[in-house]
Order: sequence, then C-alpha cells, then structure tokens
Amino acid sequence: MRDYDESTITRAVVDSFRITPDPRLRQIMISLTEHLHDFVRDVELTFAEWQYAIEFLTRTGQTCTATRQEFILLSDTLGVSMLVDAINHGAPEEVTETTVLGPFYVQNPPELPHGADVSHGQSGEPLYVEGTVRSADGQMLDGAVIDIWHSDPDGFYDVQRSDLEEPTFRARFRTDVQGQFHFWSIMPKFYPIPDDGPVGEMLKATERHPYRPAHVHFMIGAPGHETLITHVYAADSPYLDSDAVFGVKRSLVAAIIHEAPGIAPDGRVMDKPWRRLSYDFSLKPAEQVPLPFRARSDPAE
Amino acid sequence: MRDYDESTITRAVVDSFRITPDPRLRQIMISLTEHLHDFVRDVELTFAEWQYAIEFLTRTGQTCTATRQEFILLSDTLGVSMLVDAINHGAPEEVTETTVLGPFYVQNPPELPHGADVSHGQSGEPLYVEGTVRSADGQMLDGAVIDIWHSDPDGFYDVQRSDLEEPTFRARFRTDVQGQFHFWSIMPKFYPIPDDGPVGEMLKATERHPYRPAHVHFMIGAPGHETLITHVYAADSPYLDSDAVFGVKRSLVAAIIHEAPGIAPDGRVMDKPWRRLSYDFSLKPAEQVPLPFRARSDPAE
Repeated sequence: MRDYDESTITRAVVDSFRITPDPRLRQIMISLTEHLHDFVRDVELTFAEWQYAIEFLTRTGQTCTATRQEFILLSDTLGVSMLVDAINHGAPEEVTETTVLGPFYVQNPPELPHGADVSHGQSGEPLYVEGTVRSADGQMLDGAVIDIWHSDPDGFYDVQRSDLEEPTFRARFRTDVQGQFHFWSIMPKFYPIPDDGPVGEMLKATERHPYRPAHVHFMIGAPGHETLITHVYAADSPYLDSDAVFGVKRSLVAAIIHEAPGIAPDGRVMDKPWRRLSYDFSLKPAEQVPLPFRARSDPAE
Repeated sequence: MRDYDESTITRAVVDSFRITPDPRLRQIMISLTEHLHDFVRDVELTFAEWQYAIEFLTRTGQTCTATRQEFILLSDTLGVSMLVDAINHGAPEEVTETTVLGPFYVQNPPELPHGADVSHGQSGEPLYVEGTVRSADGQMLDGAVIDIWHSDPDGFYDVQRSDLEEPTFRARFRTDVQGQFHFWSIMPKFYPIPDDGPVGEMLKATERHPYRPAHVHFMIGAPGHETLITHVYAADSPYLDSDAVFGVKRSLVAAIIHEAPGIAPDGRVMDKPWRRLSYDFSLKPAEQVPLPFRARSDPAE
C-alpha cells in the first residue's frame, strides 16, 4: 500500500502493466499511461474537467450507430487519423498516396458493371469517372477490387439520408484485363462533417469550421498489394486549404474537367454539360510476410 | 494546402486551435493534441491498432448505462482518476484524504434517520458505522450531508442487482448538532470491478486482477467547505496493496472492530457478533471565491 503522489501514481500504473505477456500490448499500455498522465499533469486537469471528459467520451461512444462513427470523427478532427496515415505510409513517388478512411465506408457495397450509374437517377451534374489501377512497377492490374463512395450534391452520404432504399453513390467495381474501370455518378459537394454531436460541440467551442472539400473515396485492393485507402479531391472545391480532418494531399487533387454536351467516352449521349474525372492509381506491393520459422542453417540462431 | 508529415500534422492541428476563444479550452486542446500525437508517434501505431482503438472506445461508451460507467472504470484502471485526485487535493494533515468517486454513486440517495439500517434486512455480518464531521479547525459541523454507499457481502452494489426494489447499502444522513452520525448495515466485501466489458478485456489481456479491497464510500458536503469524496477501507481486507484502481491511501484504512453479542452504542440488542467502524472526517474549507469584479481602487487594474 502506498500513498501515491502526482509522479508515483504513474510509476505504479506502469508497473502494473509490466507483466503483460504480449510485448506489443505492454509497450502500448505503458506508453499510453505515460503520455496520458503527462497530459493530465501538464494542464492540471480539475475534477470538473475530468467529469466533463468522461461525459464527453461517453456521449461520443453513444452517438455511434451502424451508419455513424463519432470516434473516427474525433480522431479525424484531432489529426490522429492522418498522423497514423503518415506513420504507416511513406510517400514513395511511384505509388498513390493515402488519406483518411472517414466514417462513411460501408463494407461490401454492391458490385456493378463498368459504366453503371451509382447515382441511380438522383439529380445532379453528371460525373464520368475513369481510371486505371497498376502496380508500382507499372504493370496493369486485372481484377483489382475498387470500392467507391462519395457525397450527394447537398453534401450528404446515402447512409445519412432516410429516403434512399438502396446503396447510392457507393459501389464496387473490378478492373478489366487492361487495369481499367469507369462509372457514372453525379458531382459530390464539399460538406460539413456531422456536427450535431460531441465532435460538433468541440468544433463550435474552438471556432473551427466543420467543412471538407469535395471528394470521391476509393478503397482499392489487389492480390500481392497493400490495400489503398484514399480520396480524389476536386481541384475547384472550397476548403482544400482548411480540411476539417487535415486529409488533403497535393497529389490527390485532380481537375474535374467540364465537358460540353456530346458523346461520352463510353458512347453515352449527353444532352447537357457533364464532368470528367480521370485518375490513375498505383498500388504498393505488399511486404513479404516473414516465414513463421527460422531456417535451420540461419547463422543468427 | 500542405502535404503533412509525422511532425507537421501536429503543428497544423495545434494551429487550428489557436483561435479558440476560451483560454483554458485552448490550453487543454493544444496540450491534448501534442500528447496524443506524441503517444501515436512513440509506439508507431498501426492502422489495425487504430481501428481496434476506435472500436474499443466505441464499445466503452456503449457499455455505459444509467447504472454503469465504463469510461470511469477505464480512467480508474489507468490511474487517471487518482492522478486527478493527487493534482487537486494536496494532503494537508488536518483534513481527510480523498479518493476515487468510482462508477456506482447515485445522486440524491434516500435520506434516512440516524440509526437506520441501510441493508433493509439483507443478510450478512452486522456493521455499525459511527463518526463525526468537523472542519479543519476542529469545529464540529452541524447538518453536514453524508452520502454513503458500499457493496453487499458478495461484492455487488445494489445497482448491479436486479432483485432489490429500493436503494440498498446506500443512503443520505445529516450530522446532528454535535457533528455526529451513525447507521447500521452489513459488512461489504472486496470485489472485482465489472470485468465483462472492454475494461475487463484490457485487464485480462494485461494479466491484471480486477479486485478492490472492501470499503465504504462517503461523499460529505457542508456549507463553506469542499465536498469530500472518499472511502474508508477495511484494514483486514485482501488487495489493500494492489487495488485495481490505485485508490488506497494509508490514512483511509481503518480497523473494523469485531464486537461480541451485547448492547450496541445506540441501544440495539445484538444476539450475534457484529462489527464496528468508527471514523472521524475533517473537511477542507472552500477556497474564497474571487469577486466577479475588481475593486475600483485595485492598483493592478
């Protein structure tokens, strides 16, 4: 039994984690304890502020539903998501850069054929999206799986709307033998992240705006490659310089071309102006997985 | 628009909080950002670990109910609650020391007369609790409000049991003109904190036990004094040296005397052995609240 003070309490908690069998978990718990305690000591957190934090975190968890992830929003707005991204994805020039997953991804979207219209007739400015998927060495990837999702022209995702009966502005495509894909949709718009919950309170209290520039999400997987999670941002969108979640990278900003009425690349006859987004993705080969055993002749053993 | 790396992302988030109007909130958000980012960089958190953390925090929030506070458990088991306690309550010798609130306090318990039995007939070893409440200068406090709560002989609080129809092992008393109070109950037992949720998973994975030594909670308020939140621990309880929430302080451990059958101090005739807990509490005078205006003659103005 000890009477802990401001510094000995930290040592006691750290010591309690020393018997953790998994070395990685041990490392994480000890580091978390030290940095969390450093924060509390640094600001000399009051009991009332601690109570507010408990209540804030509780409401953040309880705001989460099947279609809303408030803790991801909190991580995003505190820059933690992009920091994890920066740590885990260096930016070699030959592969496409990554950005935040965001809270609106839905697993296993409906797979559609090339040329399908993922807007399912919702009105807006027509958008033709085309691209290729290749490996870092330039080889085109056949059968790469491409999940796409984006907001509607009012800035809302399908899961935020109650009037849509099927997944909309989201789908899965597969590249053809030439590594190509294309589909139709309507132009997404810049939008505020959901700000009627605890994260919105934080943004309001700190006078930060909740907006993200217009973008289309891509998650692309292919055998032998790391799954790419990224966006392509519209070069003419507001908020490119002040994304609420710090997710913009220069290489992910693309001009979305204004096209006149006429015949689109897939033969569709357009009787009004439309937009065209072309982007070529390059995937990073997966790191070689180490063998679960050492060769007998391994001299290091 | 910037391409953030591991260090510039932190600067960008900190800068986003510089316009926060409230200086205390600004200080907290900037410090939180810096320490949280330091932790993520220190352990080089992977994307899979980040996903696990999001899911863990979400479940922690969703485990909370009207009678269970999983985020307080998390704060307690990471030593944050006792660190906040240490920062905010120095330990001048003349006042009673503080400890964690814990997750089982219920506001406004039923007020009972002195001598009432808060076990309401539940079976167990009878416990007589008596004490006084005084100010740091020794003056007895008349009408101090004393909320008490404790576990049953199996280690469960009333809010964890579905068979109890009224608040049990919890009540409110008021000191008499001599600053005294007394009541009956039954002996509490050491117990595991609720370990069937996310915090329990953390304890199991790190091979920490979930037990707390036997104790009675007290929250005591009196006009002109800081509200005292504390426990009194049973000196013969296991786990005094390894409390799962780091809440034990030497000055809060009291012998709970074994008494033979006979007449108790309040005249009750006891036909079996009983226990007696005597503890005298001393409250810290509240800090003088500063006036909301400066005197005109204040030379500092």
